[in-house]
Amino acid sequence: MKAYAAECFGTFCLVFLGCASIIAGGFGNLLPLGGIGIALSFGVAVIAMAYAIGPVSGAHMNPAVTAGVFLSGRMPARDVLPYILAQIVGGTLAAAALWSIAQGNNAVAPVSRAANGWESAGLYPTPTAFALEALGTFIFVTVILGVTAKKHRTALSGMVIGLTLAVLHLCLIPVTGTSINPARSIGPALFAGAREMNQLWLFIAAPLTGAILAGILGRTGFLERA
Amino acid sequence: MKAYAAECFGTFCLVFLGCASIIAGGFGNLLPLGGIGIALSFGVAVIAMAYAIGPVSGAHMNPAVTAGVFLSGRMPARDVLPYILAQIVGGTLAAAALWSIAQGNNAVAPVSRAANGWESAGLYPTPTAFALEALGTFIFVTVILGVTAKKHRTALSGMVIGLTLAVLHLCLIPVTGTSINPARSIGPALFAGAREMNQLWLFIAAPLTGAILAGILGRTGFLERA
Amino acid sequence: MKAYAAECFGTFCLVFLGCASIIAGGFGNLLPLGGIGIALSFGVAVIAMAYAIGPVSGAHMNPAVTAGVFLSGRMPARDVLPYILAQIVGGTLAAAALWSIAQGNNAVAPVSRAANGWESAGLYPTPTAFALEALGTFIFVTVILGVTAKKHRTALSGMVIGLTLAVLHLCLIPVTGTSINPARSIGPALFAGAREMNQLWLFIAAPLTGAILAGILGRTGFLERA
Amino acid sequence: MKAYAAECFGTFCLVFLGCASIIAGGFGNLLPLGGIGIALSFGVAVIAMAYAIGPVSGAHMNPAVTAGVFLSGRMPARDVLPYILAQIVGGTLAAAALWSIAQGNNAVAPVSRAANGWESAGLYPTPTAFALEALGTFIFVTVILGVTAKKHRTALSGMVIGLTLAVLHLCLIPVTGTSINPARSIGPALFAGAREMNQLWLFIAAPLTGAILAGILGRTGFLERA
Repeated sequence: MKAYAAECFGTFCLVFLGCASIIAGGFGNLLPLGGIGIALSFGVAVIAMAYAIGPVSGAHMNPAVTAGVFLSGRMPARDVLPYILAQIVGGTLAAAALWSIAQGNNAVAPVSRAANGWESAGLYPTPTAFALEALGTFIFVTVILGVTAKKHRTALSGMVIGLTLAVLHLCLIPVTGTSINPARSIGPALFAGAREMNQLWLFIAAPLTGAILAGILGRTGFLERA
Repeated sequence: MKAYAAECFGTFCLVFLGCASIIAGGFGNLLPLGGIGIALSFGVAVIAMAYAIGPVSGAHMNPAVTAGVFLSGRMPARDVLPYILAQIVGGTLAAAALWSIAQGNNAVAPVSRAANGWESAGLYPTPTAFALEALGTFIFVTVILGVTAKKHRTALSGMVIGLTLAVLHLCLIPVTGTSINPARSIGPALFAGAREMNQLWLFIAAPLTGAILAGILGRTGFLERA
Repeated sequence: MKAYAAECFGTFCLVFLGCASIIAGGFGNLLPLGGIGIALSFGVAVIAMAYAIGPVSGAHMNPAVTAGVFLSGRMPARDVLPYILAQIVGGTLAAAALWSIAQGNNAVAPVSRAANGWESAGLYPTPTAFALEALGTFIFVTVILGVTAKKHRTALSGMVIGLTLAVLHLCLIPVTGTSINPARSIGPALFAGAREMNQLWLFIAAPLTGAILAGILGRTGFLERA
Repeated sequence: MKAYAAECFGTFCLVFLGCASIIAGGFGNLLPLGGIGIALSFGVAVIAMAYAIGPVSGAHMNPAVTAGVFLSGRMPARDVLPYILAQIVGGTLAAAALWSIAQGNNAVAPVSRAANGWESAGLYPTPTAFALEALGTFIFVTVILGVTAKKHRTALSGMVIGLTLAVLHLCLIPVTGTSINPARSIGPALFAGAREMNQLWLFIAAPLTGAILAGILGRTGFLERA
């Protein structure tokens, strides 16, 4: 039970801090954070939780990570669904908190700004968005499995995982806003609108695809010292 | 006594470096640091002090942190008041140093720019500012208690704490300028003006509220491995 | 074989993430990352791979690094060519992936934007570009050999190497776009055009020159405690 | 001898990388790095050298640091002058390298841009510049002595020292360009002009003042666990 509560709390913090930095960046020119500020917010939120709740639950905070960790054989099956449920609840609570802040405040960007999507600017076709979300998640989960492998793990693992998430944001923000995490996408979509809900499927399917491939690769021992 | 001196010195450095980066950012367009520069200044100042004075006093530098650490049962009651007094003295000395630099120099932003406040731009109602300062401090103190728990602590703890403070700045600067630390707010308010003094209560009450909740949660062992 | 696969995967990630951040920065003013974002992307990609695949292959991801490590006497001769081939394949696959994304999408900068070159703006003469790429690689490989020396190495080594690469980008981006890695230059040049191919020789010769000097210096034990 | 060579090499890298990022920032709007990029360049150069040459010489790269370390009783007197000479030689070689790059290239900012100075914009009076350079160096050397104290030192020390230097840059760049290191100021001044040479005294006297105070404080054991 403690692990599930930790996953819920951790995902709340990740989605709240990450998305708050996007909404804050929406204040006209008052404080335009831009991609680097948003990337650091998501990345450091993961770092904070990795060290604060990592010893309790592993600090997945992401159904795709849970899927990859399970498939690589490092997690019992009975924890998979409760973890994912706890993550979705945490992300939804975070979106609700951001929504209540933005409500009735014209100066603040609405929560929809923090929702994931593509084609909003008509820039990318759907297959590109899917491929990039899947590839990004594949790299992310492979790095996680590599740096937390029993034989290699160091005290730096949590730091490396968070920095990797930050750089994936730098690369993917212009395409999809960067999800690679269904729990990060579901909450904000629920408080956004029909268009965001219609695009939500991609941010569940693509990250899970990448994570499943990474989990299977991890199981082969590809990233373990011979 | 050595611990109290360390808290005073550490809080001086935190408030001086953090607020100096705000005042420096105020030079027209000469060197606009923006939110990321300010966030890094506060965050890295905490990192520097965590490793330099942490072994002497724990490097709280923040009455809210002291309250949370005490309530979680990790600090003797007799140190609470001296710590808080030392922090307030350190923060006030830092604001005095910044004030003496800005005096009579039209090119420099006045110290009031580094004071915390809300409603200055009429953006946020008071309950939102209170809730965000309390929630931010709750997350901050929970992370601190998590990463410094005896069973989990690593050499990275100080780094994680400082990075967490930096990201909280990225999220809260547009709302309140980010306090989550009464000692960081008191000094600059004393050298600012009536409006800043009138708003000071929130930056004492809200961080303490968040820290008390985090301290009580910490006491339950929520963040300790089963 | 596992080490060669790891080098190929690692170089793919390095070139993909680093160059994607350049192409993303090319979206008009939508998300101008600028030099810091690009530098962080390359640097953190190295950090991620250093911890994820470092235990398997050493995470060179760069023929110049392989040359320097070999010359310093820390790697068997039989691995040199397979490592370099794997790196070139990985970098080329990354450029192909970026090319397929940019194809037929007018809003995206073409891959040629991520190719290395000088004189494009007519700013620097060829000897300056050569000297800076060679000096940059000399510093980079010397840092690598220093921080991974058996007697000194710490858990931080991978972090330090990646941060060093990031800062070399801050300094060299305006001159050459920063290569200091033939495998990072070959892939994008193949998908760019004649001009980029004509300048490719410098991004092979200059990094290797710097790396050879660093490898020889490393062999003397210059950076080892007396 | 090896330690002196390491100090010369380390200071060369610090001044070359740090000042190159300033000159690069001078390319019109091509790649304006701004204060954060410059701060990271100096900070990360220190981190790279701390781990690469730290085990050989301690990686001072700064006469003020050498003075503070000596006064705190952690270094033999016979090494002080050779260290300082090696640092000045390294910094001067770096300025010469930058000068040769900028020569005859109108698009590049001259080396004088990287020289330290105040009053250039008429913003600050001399006593303010002196006080801030002295205070900044006092904080810097106190952090160094704290994080490298035998009882407290961790693998993170070099990282913390470099980050501290970066944040001091964020705060002092608008005032003096940030020296807190005589060897960083002497080289560029020699290749700049009469005005920079006339202001050089402050960047020797103020950092040494701060460092001497920090060294004496360090000797008292202020920063050591009771």
